[in-house]
Amino acid sequence: MSTEQDTQSTAAETYTELESRIRRISNISHAGGVLRWDQEVVMPEDGTPARAQQLSTLSSIGHELLTADETGELLEALESEELEDEQAAVVREVRRRYDRETSVPQELVEEISETTANAHPTWKEAKETDDFEAFAPTLEKLVELNREYAAHIDPDADPYEVLFAEYEPYLDLETAERVLERLRDELVPLIDAIDESEADVETDAFAGTFEDDDQEALARDVLDSLNYDWDRGRLDTAPHPFSTGTQFDARVTTRFEEDDLLGSITSTIHEFGHANYTQGLPDEGYGTPLGESRDLSVHESQSRLWENHVGRSRPFWEHFLPIARERFPSLEDVSPEAAYEAANQVYDDNLIRVEADELTYHLHIVIRFEVERALISGDLEVSEVPEVWNDKYEEYLGVRPETDAEGCLQDIHWSHGSFGYFPTYSLGSVLAAQLYAAAEDDLGDFEDDVRAGEFAELNGWLRENVHRHGCRYTTPDLIKEASGEAFTADYFLEYVTEKYGELYDL
Amino acid sequence: MSTEQDTQSTAAETYTELESRIRRISNISHAGGVLRWDQEVVMPEDGTPARAQQLSTLSSIGHELLTADETGELLEALESEELEDEQAAVVREVRRRYDRETSVPQELVEEISETTANAHPTWKEAKETDDFEAFAPTLEKLVELNREYAAHIDPDADPYEVLFAEYEPYLDLETAERVLERLRDELVPLIDAIDESEADVETDAFAGTFEDDDQEALARDVLDSLNYDWDRGRLDTAPHPFSTGTQFDARVTTRFEEDDLLGSITSTIHEFGHANYTQGLPDEGYGTPLGESRDLSVHESQSRLWENHVGRSRPFWEHFLPIARERFPSLEDVSPEAAYEAANQVYDDNLIRVEADELTYHLHIVIRFEVERALISGDLEVSEVPEVWNDKYEEYLGVRPETDAEGCLQDIHWSHGSFGYFPTYSLGSVLAAQLYAAAEDDLGDFEDDVRAGEFAELNGWLRENVHRHGCRYTTPDLIKEASGEAFTADYFLEYVTEKYGELYDL
Repeated sequence: MSTEQDTQSTAAETYTELESRIRRISNISHAGGVLRWDQEVVMPEDGTPARAQQLSTLSSIGHELLTADETGELLEALESEELEDEQAAVVREVRRRYDRETSVPQELVEEISETTANAHPTWKEAKETDDFEAFAPTLEKLVELNREYAAHIDPDADPYEVLFAEYEPYLDLETAERVLERLRDELVPLIDAIDESEADVETDAFAGTFEDDDQEALARDVLDSLNYDWDRGRLDTAPHPFSTGTQFDARVTTRFEEDDLLGSITSTIHEFGHANYTQGLPDEGYGTPLGESRDLSVHESQSRLWENHVGRSRPFWEHFLPIARERFPSLEDVSPEAAYEAANQVYDDNLIRVEADELTYHLHIVIRFEVERALISGDLEVSEVPEVWNDKYEEYLGVRPETDAEGCLQDIHWSHGSFGYFPTYSLGSVLAAQLYAAAEDDLGDFEDDVRAGEFAELNGWLRENVHRHGCRYTTPDLIKEASGEAFTADYFLEYVTEKYGELYDL
Repeated sequence: MSTEQDTQSTAAETYTELESRIRRISNISHAGGVLRWDQEVVMPEDGTPARAQQLSTLSSIGHELLTADETGELLEALESEELEDEQAAVVREVRRRYDRETSVPQELVEEISETTANAHPTWKEAKETDDFEAFAPTLEKLVELNREYAAHIDPDADPYEVLFAEYEPYLDLETAERVLERLRDELVPLIDAIDESEADVETDAFAGTFEDDDQEALARDVLDSLNYDWDRGRLDTAPHPFSTGTQFDARVTTRFEEDDLLGSITSTIHEFGHANYTQGLPDEGYGTPLGESRDLSVHESQSRLWENHVGRSRPFWEHFLPIARERFPSLEDVSPEAAYEAANQVYDDNLIRVEADELTYHLHIVIRFEVERALISGDLEVSEVPEVWNDKYEEYLGVRPETDAEGCLQDIHWSHGSFGYFPTYSLGSVLAAQLYAAAEDDLGDFEDDVRAGEFAELNGWLRENVHRHGCRYTTPDLIKEASGEAFTADYFLEYVTEKYGELYDL
């Protein structure tokens, strides 16, 4: 009896020790998040040299704390114990991070970090001067370093699979690939049909110029309307909108261009979706995986659900257009239907991912996925990228980039050394449809709620089924718990087929 | 020969190791500075629980890095070497911090930190309800903990001396005391004479109400006018104005009250003085004491020099009033002389330190110094504080507080556990006068420059003689290097006697 008690108390103590260790790591990481927000949003331009050093110190201290022998010993001790579900989840998550970070030599991490720091300006100039050759050696180096990185983590695995797991650790690559292939196979003909449609879809509802200050006021209206918790967040502008923070302080940034009011509204709703997920993580889990969001596909599902299923719906524009008209009386003559149509135009001749509509977006992703996968596997040489890229655009979207600047040089991700990141964008959209359908299945459809500007029920469902769990479940388990099914593209394809079929008279 | 080379290269390596260690500590500390700025200026109100944890983790990691055995070993190794002056200065500064932090047990540090965290709301409520009794037990506890703290650092020293050295490590307490006694002995009769003067000093130049937005625009004009480097700083508002940062990013905050335009201008100039010092620290010293500012008296000398010697001078108002009139046309009828007089009124019946003028301010400080010194030495019981406080106000300023809220409960410092801090405010003003006189001695008086809004020469002198040195010299050595003399109150007393003698026809 007494022995058993001793063992229990030792396990509890060991767990507490692990928890206090990871809380420190988490605090260091969130401090870094504040410094990065500051850098993007408010830091004066000459602050960079000191900021870079501060961030580098925080990141190396976090790495040292995580990869210390003590962490490994605590994990091992706990893995031989019977733990409660939540504790077991924490141990699972820390183990995964520990194994990855300890398997990569620090020199390689530093070499990658240095190479990407230099890659950024090289890419930027290559893009500006439309000179792929200037970026090619850097890209080759980055591909090689990422292959090395993957080999350290798992020498027997497909290196792309290892890299993908950096951003989406629990969804296996085969599933992801199957989903992306289905998107390609079913969206290409749908977009072709739209291209041939003679339906008269409104395109000019948001033509005109719109003052920044008024756009900002409207962005605040958007967030008010969606019940963003201002006591735990704030809105600012940044050149590349993002959201960041913790459940206590989840911030949104957006940007304004005077001729793109619609873009600022949808971008604000998108970032709201991210921040709203963060705000919904449980307070008591702060500092442990139980209070951290699941990985990129789940995060993106939250932003896309609000952006697309809510923000690009007919009832949303019935609700929101009167609010927008108060800021912009010039919208007086725009009907909700016209706004809805403008928000859902399909641009089959657009070359730029970040300007893509809800449908063609996924072909932009599929192309990047196919190209980067072949690059990492060695099936594709860096020098062949521009041509393969352009061929794929021609094949899937019927449009061929005339320059690499608007082709394979357009995105920043590879210059960041991020390979395996792109797919999570599409997987997030697909998951958004699955979760939205599950919520409607539980609660009935939300049309009337959205039309009335009432989002509490929908958000309550997301809080209950997604947000509050943090990293308690793996991604596939979370999807199953929330929707009752394994991850599937069915709901997304059904949603777009119905929505765009109706809109374009298909 | 080869042995000597080996020794040299070892010393160089040891120094590099120490330097890399303190750079990390410095980065952690500056990261904490960014988090605190964020908390005061932009953080949403519910962000506190997570922020408190983040700051506590950063502070304990900084403490662990500094007090680690490795730091002590590196210091010892370097102290037996012949070092270059700059390296020796770095070793001196790190040694001082190391000795202090290693001598205080971590439990005591945590107890103080916890007690002060709880003391703050207790003090706040006691002040709001004018209930000294409610704060007394907390104050007793804080006095006791601070005595314990001092005893750990030096059991043989006067505990107040040890506490004072926390804020002003190199100016000995005897010097400080002598200066404060001189201020008391010479300012009391001067203020009495002003009180009896029948001179007609303008008081209403800035009467009226002034919109916040316009005040903010004018605060930016102030900073523009003083050549604040916006690429390395920014201006925001905060409830209690402060400045913070590094040479790469030194930020100013200020606040606006619609009936106190003059207060916002002088407070902005004051904070400019602090930030301008920080901006003048050498870039290459970032992360080491060579790139850090000297202690509180020197910092305060920089804010007071700009606030008082520049911002409360006649030529400054000749320069600045036309700028202020552009923001506030209602100032059209105010003359520079009237503005100058309004900025230099002496309020001998004011009870509140932060509202005091340039002269009576020091009696507020002297009273706090005498009270806290007696508290720490044990000559004064906490229960006697209100009466002693009020008696001293009556004796030095001829005015007796009717409540403790406007008496001994007015300041936040003791609730922070800060004893020994107050004197640095007066020492800073005294040093400002000494430095300003030395600059004028070198370059001729600045009247014409200030009248023309040209501050480059004065600031150049400060950069050359104060800012660029960081912590290379101890405070007394820095004062001597810059002014050619030891620290003295002569210049301050000469300055106020002449200025106020002229203003009040004495």
